[in-house]
Amino acid sequence: MKICTKNILLLATLIFAVSGTAIAAETAGTTLAILGEVQKYNRAIHIMAMLLVGFGFLMVFVKKYGRSALTATYLLVSVSIPLYFLKESFFGIGSSEGLIDKLILAEFAAASLLICAGAVLGRLKMDQYLLLGILFVPIYALNEWIVVNGGLGLISGKVVDTGGSIVIHAFGAIFGLGVAASMTTQSEYDAPIECDDTSDRYSLLGSMVLWVFWPSFCAALVAPADVPATAVNVILALCGSTIATYFASVRLRGKIAAADIANATLAGGVAIGSTCDLAAPGTAFAIGILAGIVSTFGFAIIQSRLTEMTKKVDTCGVLYLHGLPGILGGVAAMLVVSGISFGAQLSGILITLVLAAGGGLISGKVICALGRRSAPYLDDEEFEGEAFEMNEVQPRAVETDPV
Amino acid sequence: MKICTKNILLLATLIFAVSGTAIAAETAGTTLAILGEVQKYNRAIHIMAMLLVGFGFLMVFVKKYGRSALTATYLLVSVSIPLYFLKESFFGIGSSEGLIDKLILAEFAAASLLICAGAVLGRLKMDQYLLLGILFVPIYALNEWIVVNGGLGLISGKVVDTGGSIVIHAFGAIFGLGVAASMTTQSEYDAPIECDDTSDRYSLLGSMVLWVFWPSFCAALVAPADVPATAVNVILALCGSTIATYFASVRLRGKIAAADIANATLAGGVAIGSTCDLAAPGTAFAIGILAGIVSTFGFAIIQSRLTEMTKKVDTCGVLYLHGLPGILGGVAAMLVVSGISFGAQLSGILITLVLAAGGGLISGKVICALGRRSAPYLDDEEFEGEAFEMNEVQPRAVETDPV
Amino acid sequence: MKICTKNILLLATLIFAVSGTAIAAETAGTTLAILGEVQKYNRAIHIMAMLLVGFGFLMVFVKKYGRSALTATYLLVSVSIPLYFLKESFFGIGSSEGLIDKLILAEFAAASLLICAGAVLGRLKMDQYLLLGILFVPIYALNEWIVVNGGLGLISGKVVDTGGSIVIHAFGAIFGLGVAASMTTQSEYDAPIECDDTSDRYSLLGSMVLWVFWPSFCAALVAPADVPATAVNVILALCGSTIATYFASVRLRGKIAAADIANATLAGGVAIGSTCDLAAPGTAFAIGILAGIVSTFGFAIIQSRLTEMTKKVDTCGVLYLHGLPGILGGVAAMLVVSGISFGAQLSGILITLVLAAGGGLISGKVICALGRRSAPYLDDEEFEGEAFEMNEVQPRAVETDPV
Repeated sequence: MKICTKNILLLATLIFAVSGTAIAAETAGTTLAILGEVQKYNRAIHIMAMLLVGFGFLMVFVKKYGRSALTATYLLVSVSIPLYFLKESFFGIGSSEGLIDKLILAEFAAASLLICAGAVLGRLKMDQYLLLGILFVPIYALNEWIVVNGGLGLISGKVVDTGGSIVIHAFGAIFGLGVAASMTTQSEYDAPIECDDTSDRYSLLGSMVLWVFWPSFCAALVAPADVPATAVNVILALCGSTIATYFASVRLRGKIAAADIANATLAGGVAIGSTCDLAAPGTAFAIGILAGIVSTFGFAIIQSRLTEMTKKVDTCGVLYLHGLPGILGGVAAMLVVSGISFGAQLSGILITLVLAAGGGLISGKVICALGRRSAPYLDDEEFEGEAFEMNEVQPRAVETDPV
Repeated sequence: MKICTKNILLLATLIFAVSGTAIAAETAGTTLAILGEVQKYNRAIHIMAMLLVGFGFLMVFVKKYGRSALTATYLLVSVSIPLYFLKESFFGIGSSEGLIDKLILAEFAAASLLICAGAVLGRLKMDQYLLLGILFVPIYALNEWIVVNGGLGLISGKVVDTGGSIVIHAFGAIFGLGVAASMTTQSEYDAPIECDDTSDRYSLLGSMVLWVFWPSFCAALVAPADVPATAVNVILALCGSTIATYFASVRLRGKIAAADIANATLAGGVAIGSTCDLAAPGTAFAIGILAGIVSTFGFAIIQSRLTEMTKKVDTCGVLYLHGLPGILGGVAAMLVVSGISFGAQLSGILITLVLAAGGGLISGKVICALGRRSAPYLDDEEFEGEAFEMNEVQPRAVETDPV
Repeated sequence: MKICTKNILLLATLIFAVSGTAIAAETAGTTLAILGEVQKYNRAIHIMAMLLVGFGFLMVFVKKYGRSALTATYLLVSVSIPLYFLKESFFGIGSSEGLIDKLILAEFAAASLLICAGAVLGRLKMDQYLLLGILFVPIYALNEWIVVNGGLGLISGKVVDTGGSIVIHAFGAIFGLGVAASMTTQSEYDAPIECDDTSDRYSLLGSMVLWVFWPSFCAALVAPADVPATAVNVILALCGSTIATYFASVRLRGKIAAADIANATLAGGVAIGSTCDLAAPGTAFAIGILAGIVSTFGFAIIQSRLTEMTKKVDTCGVLYLHGLPGILGGVAAMLVVSGISFGAQLSGILITLVLAAGGGLISGKVICALGRRSAPYLDDEEFEGEAFEMNEVQPRAVETDPV
């Protein structure tokens, strides 16, 4: 009897030890997972700051087009995020991804769309931006599915593109060039895009907001343990491209162009995307320097010649900020990442470029077919003459009749 | 003897298993709680960005009143947060709330005060804003205590208002209208509020900062596990109101008004407040669309007529951004949340409106009684003529005598 | 035999209970540590927002120098962070600090450098800012090592300076004054620094971004459990200095100066640095009020007299925003922190001032020796005449030949 009691006691202890530990581990595990999600949420908010304030103000340099650029940013974000969610709830039934993962993927789609819109900025009406968003998101999602998730089985092996150099930046830029190619009119080409007098400071504000939160963009979906190294790599790449941009701008132009500083400084962030969680810090810095040089060379030397040659206008120069540095980043991964599949990486880049170019050309034709004008748009066409006239009931005398 | 040793060993094992598990769980639990607090701190910082940069720049549209609007924002935030803390340390002795919870509640009070100040922007001197803050915070705290915490036993049942559609937005807006009603002078009414030439971009900057961080405002105090769903709901509501605002603005005005885009886009965030942690994503999107339409209708149609009718000026149109969408959000909860107490919800809304209107009217009278002028204020009255004249010791020749 | 089995079972249970608990605790502990690192990463991003958007736009008030100020900010950050990392990888081999700790320390160095640059803003070319950064970082790191880490054994006892009132703010300001002292020319002194017409709003934007994220600056490296109290202290100190600045500005100048509001409001954050994790809330508020008064007194009364007396120009008034409030904060710690070593604290302050002044004077001489001009610089000298002239291939007729 005594032994029996002891046996039961022993068994109870064993069960308690096992289950107690397991429960404690599981409870802690659940809460840890939740805290991890909330941290990911923080990065999602940082990305949102990039989308609206960052991209929005980076594009506020076209003269008399500031309100349009900001409103377009608002609309493009607001149409692409629900659209991407809609696709997720159609196709993502068996998906193990959490809600914040879906939100971040939707924000990535919005970022790529904003890059695309930069190529045709100033030449679309508001409802045409909405149409562009509706055409863009499904093709973007198709490319993402093929390149990142192995959809259709087109790519065997893993494409290395954590921070989206290829599927976000290069895709958006080339798509935008496709749209620009199929819709730029002669009169748009003839009308040079001028800048506002205060525009450079607004653009630099947008640029800085992008710079600041770029680490959260690249580290958005990496495991918590990889966030620190990823963040430091991105920051080093951005430091590299910033310094390189200054020297390249002076060297290539004689003087610094504020447009170079606002744009090419970010090329390091674009190019480090593919390898942000895998590169060594020194490599990240070098990729940033290279990207800054390539991007500044694009803005300073290639842009004007290519524009003249093709008679097509890339308003924001997305080819030089997102296109070339994005491809550079995707290619750099083949040198930097050990054990990478060359075939998969190259296929990923090529499929992205083909889908983007094709999608852009077709989207441009569709937008034109639904009616557009040949000359660029100004704020005044769609916006009320004077913004923010409140209590404008009738013309009234000012400061008469003090009570 | 041998059995005795074994018994002791057995007992020791049991104790160890129990206590070890408990200690491990408790240690992990304490640290988890601390990490949860730090995450809440992050959302508190996001809200601070909304208060200063968001509300501050949203209000920078009144001509020659930019410095005043930003300085007023600084002062209103800086007076209301310590004041709310003071109340907490008087009444919150037995409170189980942590420090960050108190900070977030203080920020909510500051947000409501900034909304209130928007109604009378341009018509107060700096020390009158401070006075307004001192009058506002106690009445705000009283209403919060009655509606949210069941103070005085006036409301039986729970009022659903997680993100403050009722107690923050509607309260602040109606309080502000009360102040405006009791102090608008004829000459103020006669002096139309004009906009700066660059003001629209500043306002859109403020608007975008509010949009970006709004999810953290609504999710500030929800449990970590509810943060993702809450954030996605808020973002979908904002997407809905942004798209709806564009279409409503074009439809109602013929052209887009930048003021609509800067303001009504945010109405989804206001209206989703009450149900942000409870609504389904589709419902959140629908509430956003509805709020965007209501708000734009307010700015485009109601504002000018109501102004003319009442001869009272609501400078920022807080009735249309915070008042109506806030009430809409509070009422929507009755349709959306299952098991909600209709009586409590309606009582909460009505008590809020009555306390806000009464508090606002009285505060306006008090401010007037302590002396004010009839005409609107300009930056120049309180600010030095030229900002930022450094080393202005004496007029000196420029660029003479290079060394 | 039966007893033997039971003994083995008992032993197994004991081992399981011990190891299971230990493993669960360790796993949870590892993940908790990782989550703690990611939270620190968030604060590092907040600091980055302060460095670029905060300091950058705070300095956009010099007329025709906006692009230069923002580009200089970009370059100073991008040169100092990799440089500090380089030092870490040379000397930090045995260091137990994590990667994010190093990043935050590098950001602190960048912050101090930006403060330093504020003293000579408008009088350096871009490559001279880079040179300044290269000269500054090693001396900054030397001082940090001596004062914070007890390097060279110069200080016995701990210097209380969690948020860097002494080693970041005072060091940067005094270093900058040293540079200004050894390089200000007569013609620079004769050329008053004028402000842009929209500059005040840009400066207030920078100021507000600094205000908002300041709690993350001070709490960057404190333990998670101390983050809430530290954050609340910093916010209360900033509220105190903001209110005090308003009253002091009106009192001392008759009217409010926007420069006071943009700058002195932040003095509370500077001064609370040393004691941010140790002061009581009321003390923090009081330190903020005192710092606001001291700083405003500096801008309103001391600046013009000192400039006239010394014939040296402190462009941004860093002595009054960072120098005096930083020293105030370091000294305040001696009254506020119980058990503080007076000797260590005083030594820390004095060594910082001596190293900063000496380093600044020498750096100024080096910069001058490598060639500089006597007159201030304008954007136009280094920047292309018009920013953002895109597709400027050739002069083209506008809106001819619509297709």
